[in-house]
Amino acid sequence: MDSISIIGMISIITAGITIAVGSIAPALGEGKALSQALTAIAQQPDETPSITRTLFVGLAMIESTAIYCFVVALILIFANPFWDYVISGG
Amino acid sequence: MDSISIIGMISIITAGITIAVGSIAPALGEGKALSQALTAIAQQPDETPSITRTLFVGLAMIESTAIYCFVVALILIFANPFWDYVISGG
Amino acid sequence: MDSISIIGMISIITAGITIAVGSIAPALGEGKALSQALTAIAQQPDETPSITRTLFVGLAMIESTAIYCFVVALILIFANPFWDYVISGG
Amino acid sequence: MDSISIIGMISIITAGITIAVGSIAPALGEGKALSQALTAIAQQPDETPSITRTLFVGLAMIESTAIYCFVVALILIFANPFWDYVISGG
Amino acid sequence: MDSISIIGMISIITAGITIAVGSIAPALGEGKALSQALTAIAQQPDETPSITRTLFVGLAMIESTAIYCFVVALILIFANPFWDYVISGG
Amino acid sequence: MDSISIIGMISIITAGITIAVGSIAPALGEGKALSQALTAIAQQPDETPSITRTLFVGLAMIESTAIYCFVVALILIFANPFWDYVISGG
Amino acid sequence: MDSISIIGMISIITAGITIAVGSIAPALGEGKALSQALTAIAQQPDETPSITRTLFVGLAMIESTAIYCFVVALILIFANPFWDYVISGG
Amino acid sequence: MDSISIIGMISIITAGITIAVGSIAPALGEGKALSQALTAIAQQPDETPSITRTLFVGLAMIESTAIYCFVVALILIFANPFWDYVISGG
Amino acid sequence: MDSISIIGMISIITAGITIAVGSIAPALGEGKALSQALTAIAQQPDETPSITRTLFVGLAMIESTAIYCFVVALILIFANPFWDYVISGG
Amino acid sequence: MDSISIIGMISIITAGITIAVGSIAPALGEGKALSQALTAIAQQPDETPSITRTLFVGLAMIESTAIYCFVVALILIFANPFWDYVISGG
Amino acid sequence: MDSISIIGMISIITAGITIAVGSIAPALGEGKALSQALTAIAQQPDETPSITRTLFVGLAMIESTAIYCFVVALILIFANPFWDYVISGG
Amino acid sequence: MDSISIIGMISIITAGITIAVGSIAPALGEGKALSQALTAIAQQPDETPSITRTLFVGLAMIESTAIYCFVVALILIFANPFWDYVISGG
Amino acid sequence: MDSISIIGMISIITAGITIAVGSIAPALGEGKALSQALTAIAQQPDETPSITRTLFVGLAMIESTAIYCFVVALILIFANPFWDYVISGG
Amino acid sequence: MDSISIIGMISIITAGITIAVGSIAPALGEGKALSQALTAIAQQPDETPSITRTLFVGLAMIESTAIYCFVVALILIFANPFWDYVISGG
Repeated sequence: MDSISIIGMISIITAGITIAVGSIAPALGEGKALSQALTAIAQQPDETPSITRTLFVGLAMIESTAIYCFVVALILIFANPFWDYVISGG
Repeated sequence: MDSISIIGMISIITAGITIAVGSIAPALGEGKALSQALTAIAQQPDETPSITRTLFVGLAMIESTAIYCFVVALILIFANPFWDYVISGG
Repeated sequence: MDSISIIGMISIITAGITIAVGSIAPALGEGKALSQALTAIAQQPDETPSITRTLFVGLAMIESTAIYCFVVALILIFANPFWDYVISGG
Repeated sequence: MDSISIIGMISIITAGITIAVGSIAPALGEGKALSQALTAIAQQPDETPSITRTLFVGLAMIESTAIYCFVVALILIFANPFWDYVISGG
Repeated sequence: MDSISIIGMISIITAGITIAVGSIAPALGEGKALSQALTAIAQQPDETPSITRTLFVGLAMIESTAIYCFVVALILIFANPFWDYVISGG
Repeated sequence: MDSISIIGMISIITAGITIAVGSIAPALGEGKALSQALTAIAQQPDETPSITRTLFVGLAMIESTAIYCFVVALILIFANPFWDYVISGG
Repeated sequence: MDSISIIGMISIITAGITIAVGSIAPALGEGKALSQALTAIAQQPDETPSITRTLFVGLAMIESTAIYCFVVALILIFANPFWDYVISGG
Repeated sequence: MDSISIIGMISIITAGITIAVGSIAPALGEGKALSQALTAIAQQPDETPSITRTLFVGLAMIESTAIYCFVVALILIFANPFWDYVISGG
Repeated sequence: MDSISIIGMISIITAGITIAVGSIAPALGEGKALSQALTAIAQQPDETPSITRTLFVGLAMIESTAIYCFVVALILIFANPFWDYVISGG
Repeated sequence: MDSISIIGMISIITAGITIAVGSIAPALGEGKALSQALTAIAQQPDETPSITRTLFVGLAMIESTAIYCFVVALILIFANPFWDYVISGG
Repeated sequence: MDSISIIGMISIITAGITIAVGSIAPALGEGKALSQALTAIAQQPDETPSITRTLFVGLAMIESTAIYCFVVALILIFANPFWDYVISGG
Repeated sequence: MDSISIIGMISIITAGITIAVGSIAPALGEGKALSQALTAIAQQPDETPSITRTLFVGLAMIESTAIYCFVVALILIFANPFWDYVISGG
Repeated sequence: MDSISIIGMISIITAGITIAVGSIAPALGEGKALSQALTAIAQQPDETPSITRTLFVGLAMIESTAIYCFVVALILIFANPFWDYVISGG
Repeated sequence: MDSISIIGMISIITAGITIAVGSIAPALGEGKALSQALTAIAQQPDETPSITRTLFVGLAMIESTAIYCFVVALILIFANPFWDYVISGG
C-alpha cells in the first residue's frame, strides 16, 4: 500500500470510530440526567424553572464532549493535515 | 489490493459501524428517559405538560448524537473526499 | 482477491452487522420503556391515554435509530455506490 | 480463494450472525416487558384489557427489529445480488 | 482450500453458532417472564387464568426469535443454496 | 489441510461449542425460574399446585432451546451431510 | 500437520472446553436455586417437604444441561467417529 | 511440529483450562448457597438441621460439575487415548 | 511503509482514540453528578445556590480530564514533534 | 521449536494460568460466605457455634476447587508425563 | 521499519492511550464523589463548609492520578529520552 | 529462538501473570469480608471478639489462595525444573 | 529490529500502560471512600474530625498502590537497567 | 531477535503489567473497606477505636497482595536470574 491509501484509510476509520465511540457516553449521561430531571419535576413541581435551567446548563456541558469528538472527526475528513501533505506529493 | 479497493472497503465498513455503534447509546438513553417520564406522569399527572415538554427537548438533544453519526455515515457513502480523490486517479 | 470480491464481501458483512448491532439498543430501550408504561398504567389507570400517547411518540423516536441502521443496510445491499463503481469496471 | 467462495462464505456467515445477534435484544426486551405486564396485571386486575392491549402493540414494535434482521438474513441467503452477480460470471 | 471445503466449513460453523447464540436470549427472557408469572400468581391467585394466558402468548412470541435461528440453522445444514451450487460443480 | 481434515475439525469444534454455549442460558433461566417458584411457594403455600404446574410447563419451554442445540450438536457428530459428502469422495 | 494430529488436537480441545464452559451455568443456576430454597425454608418451615421436592426436581432439570455437555465431551474422547475414521486410514 | 508435540501441548493446555474454568462457577455457586444458608440459620435457628441437610445435598450436586471437569482433566493427563495412540507410533 | 506513512497513520489513530475514549468517563461522571444535583435541588430547594455552585466547580474539575485528552489530540494533529521531524527529512 | 521447548513452554504457562484463574472464584466465594457469616453472627449471636461450624465445612468445600487447580498445577510442574516422555527422548 | 519510526510510533500511541485510559477512573471517581457531596449538602445544609472542604481535598487527591498520567504523556511527547537517543544517531 | 530464550521468556511472563491475576480475587474477597466485619462490629459491638476471630480465620483461608499463586510464581523464577533442564544442556 | 529499538519500544509502552492501568483502581477506590466520608459527615457531623482523619490515612494507603505504579513507570523511562545495558553496547 | 532482547523485553513488560494489574484489586478492596469503616464510625461513634484497629489490620492484609506483586516486579527488574544468565553469555 502506498502512503495515500494508508493515510486515507486510517483517516476514514478514525473519523468514524471517533464520533461513534464519542457519542456513547454523552447520550447515556444525558439520558441519565434527563431521567432524573423528570423525577425531580414530579417530586417538586414548584422548582421546575430552577431544575430545567440547571439541566440545560449541564446538558450543554455534557454535549461538549460529544462535540469535541465531532470536531475531531470533521477535521480528519475535511481538514486533515496529514492527507494534505501526502496528496501534495509531500 | 489497490487504492480503490482499500478506500472503498474501509468507507463501507466505517459507515456501517459508525451508525450501528452510534445508535446504541441514544436508543438506550432515550429509553431510559422515556421510562422515567412515564413514571413521572403516573406520579404527578398534573405536571404532564411540563414533563413532556422537558422530555421532548431532552430527547432531541440525545437524538442529536445519533444524528452526528448518521451524518458521518452518509458523508462516507455519498460525499467521501478520499473516494473522490482516488477514483479521479488522484 | 480482486476489487469485486472485496467490495462485495465487505458490503455483505457490513450490511448484516449494521442491522444486527443496530437493532440491539432500540429493542432494549423499547422494552424498558414499555415495561415502565405498563407499570405506570397499573399505578395510575386514569392517565392511560396520556401515558400511551407519550409512549408511542417516544417509541417512534427510539425506533428511528433502528431505522437509520436498516436504511444504511439496504443502501449497502441494493444501492451501493462503491459496488456500482467496481462492477462498471470503474 | 476465488470470488464465488468468498461471496458464498461471507453470505452464510453474515446471514447466521445477523439473525443470531439480532434476536438477542428483542427476546430480552420482550421478556422484560412481559414480566412487567404480569406484575401490572397482578397489581391492577381491573386494567387487564388495557395492559394487554398496550403490551401487544409494544411487543409488535419490538419484534419488528427482529424481523428486520430476519429479512436481511433471508435476503442474503435467497436473494443476494452479490451472489447473483458472481455466479452469472459477473 | 477449495470451494467445497470452504463453503462446508462455514456452513457448519454458522449453523452451530446461530442456534447457540440465538438460544441465549430467548431462554433468559423466558426465564425472567416465567419467574415474574410465578410471583404474580403468588400475589394475586385469583388472576391465575389471565396471568397464565398472557404468559403463554408472550412466551410464544419470545420463542419465535429462537425459532427464526433454528430455521436458519437447519436451512444452512440441509437446504443450503450455496452448498448445492458448489457441489453441482457450479 | 485436505477437505476431510477441515470438515472433521470444524464439525467437532462446532458440536462442542454449540452445546456448551447453548446450555448456558437455559440453565441460568431455569435456575432463576426455579428460585422464584420456591419463593412463591413460601409466600403462598395454598397455590403450590398451580405454581408447580406453571413452573414445569415453563421449564419445558426453556429446556426446548437447550434441546435445539443438543439436536444440532448430535446432527453434526453423527448425521453430518457435509462429512458424508467428503468421505464419499464427493 | 497431518489429519490425525488435527483431529486429535481438536477433539481434545473441544472436549475440555465443552465440559468446562458447560458446567458454568448449571453450577450458577443450581447455586441460585439452592440459596432461594434455603431462604424459603427459613421463611416457611412448614412447607419444607414441598419446597425440597420442587427443588430437587428443578435441580435435576438444570443438571441435565451439564450432563448434555459431559456426554458430548466423553463422546469426543472415547467414541469419536471422526477420529475412528482417520486412524482407520479413512 | 510433529504429532507428539501437538497432542502433548494441547492435552496440557486443555487439562489446565478445563479444571481452571470449571472450578469458577461451582465455587461461586457454593459461596452463594453457603451465604444464604448462614442467613437462613440466623433467621430461623430452629430449622438448622433441615437447612444444613438441604445445603449439603445441594452443595454435593453443585460440586459434581466441578468433579466432571476434574475427571476430564485427569483423563487428559493420565489416560489420554489420543496421546496413547501417537506415542505408540499410531 | 516509510516513516512518513507510519508516523502519520499512528498520529491520526491516536488522536481519534484519545479524544473518543477520553470523553467517555467525563460524560458519564458529569451525567451522574448532574442527576444527583437535580435530585438534591428537588429535596432541598432552599439550598439551590450552594448546590449549583458546588456542582459547577465539580463539573469544571471533571471536564478538565476531557480537556487533557482534547489537548493531547490537537497536539498530535497540529503540533506533532515526531511528524515535524520526519517531514523535515529528519 | 523442538518438542522439548514446546512441552516445557506449555507446561509452565498452563501451570501458572491454572492456579491463577483457579484461585479467583474460591477467593470470591469464600469472601462472600465469610461476609455473610459475620452478618449472621451480628444478627443472631446465640447461634455463633452453629454458624461457624457450617461456615468452616462450607469453606472447606469451596477451598477444594482451589486445591484441584493447585494439584493440577503442581502435577504439570513436577510430575508431568508429557515432559517425562519428551526428555527421555520419547 | 527503522528505529526512528518505531520509537516515534510507539511514543505517540503510548502518550495517547496513557492520558485517555488514565482519565477514565478519575472522572468517574470525581463524578461519584461530587454526586455524594451534593446529596450530603441536601441532607445536612449546615455542614456545607465542612463537606465542600473535604470534597475539594479529596478531589485533588483523585485528580493527582490523572495528573500522573498527563505528566507521563507529555514526557513521552516532549522529553522522551528514547527518542532523543535515536534521533541523535544513538 | 532457541530453547533457553523460550523457556526463560515464558517463565517470566507466567510468574508475573500468576501473581498479578492471583492477587485480584483474594484482595477483593478480603475487602468484602473486612467491610462486612466492620458493619457487624458497628451493629453488635458486644460480639467484637467473636467477629474478629472468625474474620481472621476466614482471611487466612482466603489469603491461602494468594499464597498458592505466590508460591507458584517463586518456583517459576527460582526453582524452575524446565529452566534447570535447558541450561544444563538438557 | 535491533535490540535498541525493541527495548526502547517496550519500555515506552510498558511505562505508559503501567501508570494508566495503575491509576484506575486507586481513583475509583478513593472516589468511593470519599463519597462515603461525605455521607458519614452528613449523618454524624459531630464525628467529622475522626472521620476525616481515618479518611486521609486510608486515602494515603490507597494512593500508595498508584505510587508503586508511578515509580515503576519512572524507573522504566529514566533508570532502566535493560536500556542502559543495550545502549552501552552490552 | 537474540536472547538478550527477548529476555529484556519480556522482563520489562511483565514487571509493568504485574504491578499495574496487581494494584487494581487491593486499591478497590481497600476503598471498599475504608468506605465501610467510615459508615461504621458514623453509626457507632463509640466503637471508633475497635473499628479503626480492625480496619488497619485488615488493610495491611489486603495491601500484602499488592506488595507480593511489587516484589515480583522489582525482582524482574533488578534481580532477574534469567537476565543475569543471558548477559553472562549463558
